[in-house]
Amino acid sequence: MEEKLVKQHERVDDLQCKGLRLIQNPNGFCFGIDAVLLSNFCEIRKNWRVVDLGTGTGIIPILLAGKTDAKEILGVEIQEAVAEMAQRSVKLNKLQDRVKIINEDLKNILEHIESYSFDCVTSNPPYMNAGGGLLNPESMKAISRHEVKCTLEDVISVSSKLLKDRGHFYMVHRPHRLVDIIYLCRQYRLEPKKIRFVHPNKNKKPNILLIQCVKYGRPELKFMDPLYVYNEDGTYTDEIHEIYGRDSQNK
Amino acid sequence: MEEKLVKQHERVDDLQCKGLRLIQNPNGFCFGIDAVLLSNFCEIRKNWRVVDLGTGTGIIPILLAGKTDAKEILGVEIQEAVAEMAQRSVKLNKLQDRVKIINEDLKNILEHIESYSFDCVTSNPPYMNAGGGLLNPESMKAISRHEVKCTLEDVISVSSKLLKDRGHFYMVHRPHRLVDIIYLCRQYRLEPKKIRFVHPNKNKKPNILLIQCVKYGRPELKFMDPLYVYNEDGTYTDEIHEIYGRDSQNK
Repeated sequence: MEEKLVKQHERVDDLQCKGLRLIQNPNGFCFGIDAVLLSNFCEIRKNWRVVDLGTGTGIIPILLAGKTDAKEILGVEIQEAVAEMAQRSVKLNKLQDRVKIINEDLKNILEHIESYSFDCVTSNPPYMNAGGGLLNPESMKAISRHEVKCTLEDVISVSSKLLKDRGHFYMVHRPHRLVDIIYLCRQYRLEPKKIRFVHPNKNKKPNILLIQCVKYGRPELKFMDPLYVYNEDGTYTDEIHEIYGRDSQNK
Repeated sequence: MEEKLVKQHERVDDLQCKGLRLIQNPNGFCFGIDAVLLSNFCEIRKNWRVVDLGTGTGIIPILLAGKTDAKEILGVEIQEAVAEMAQRSVKLNKLQDRVKIINEDLKNILEHIESYSFDCVTSNPPYMNAGGGLLNPESMKAISRHEVKCTLEDVISVSSKLLKDRGHFYMVHRPHRLVDIIYLCRQYRLEPKKIRFVHPNKNKKPNILLIQCVKYGRPELKFMDPLYVYNEDGTYTDEIHEIYGRDSQNK
């Protein structure tokens, strides 16, 4: 079974969470700490319906399936080869009943699924503005990292249309885009309610931003205590070990 | 001279900066760390014209007069008794040539001074939303702390009208208002360019926000390293000592 699901150039990573595993292509875009932190940041209630926009390898739907009691998790991915690999990871984990991968441009997703029907949207979108010296805008890595196929506004506007009233939107992004994120979220009625900054260590400025918005939420932003990745001696902090699971010392 | 400037119920505080002093009324709103941090955060060039909106005791104009080579600093204060006290502090420091206090509602300030003519606007405005169980909305403390006489939008819209193109706007505020601040600043063409969060210590979330915006600035936000106020043993950090001046151990 497994041999058929994993291709020769691919590798299978243990996600350190309830035996979940993920197929990745070492030459493509591999998931990083961001997706793991976002999955941990999400508060997802029993029987919720969730969409992950720009799901890539399917890391977020698969982790959420393991960590939460969500009823249904859709992962939307524009790149055919990547979506196909994510689909095989779903099968590898026998999660076909709860996790579905849709190979589609997120801008067209409302042609496939009903608007205003989801409890939660998650996204770990490309961080970089489009343009700016891209060598190959069709490469898999470029599409995952740069706003080639979708802009931040696409992600936020589609999320708003997918969510029910009071639905939750969770995103991981970079602090230097905070102004765009906050401005667009409020414009599309996704009110920012909670922010957590992730710092490399206690003396460095944040380099990752986790944000929770609530559709039509009342304006009131809460900051969480900062999350530090490394101790001063270069080892992971206790909180990072907890998030990654106990066996992750070498991750 | 000094006896005539200071009234019986007032006190004179040494600002630990080039011998500057400030008259305060212990029963009114006294300046706090916020005004000192904002004065330190501002980057003000030689011969700039500066306005401080909601200047209170005049702490920010007086500190900026000491720390920078600004040509002219106007402080705008709506409360007559407070503006009068600030005016006496200006005289006490012999800064009448560079610092002027205007007793006026900041919403009407464009009737007195020219729009689009300032290089910099600073503000340490009231932090709290209006309403919400105010005992006495006319009290000096309430006016300094709550949005009784002006809203955040008033401060930002007036600042935008006062500034030249590429003029700088500096504000100190509370992190829970970050969404309102960012949304309104961009709406009024004051693009947020730099944010510094101030944390009580390394394990606590931020409780003070310093922001620099540039009128018609290019969207690109920079985070500064966090500023921590206290060490783990409860003493001030070195950076706070530097900001306050060396003789400030007991402040």
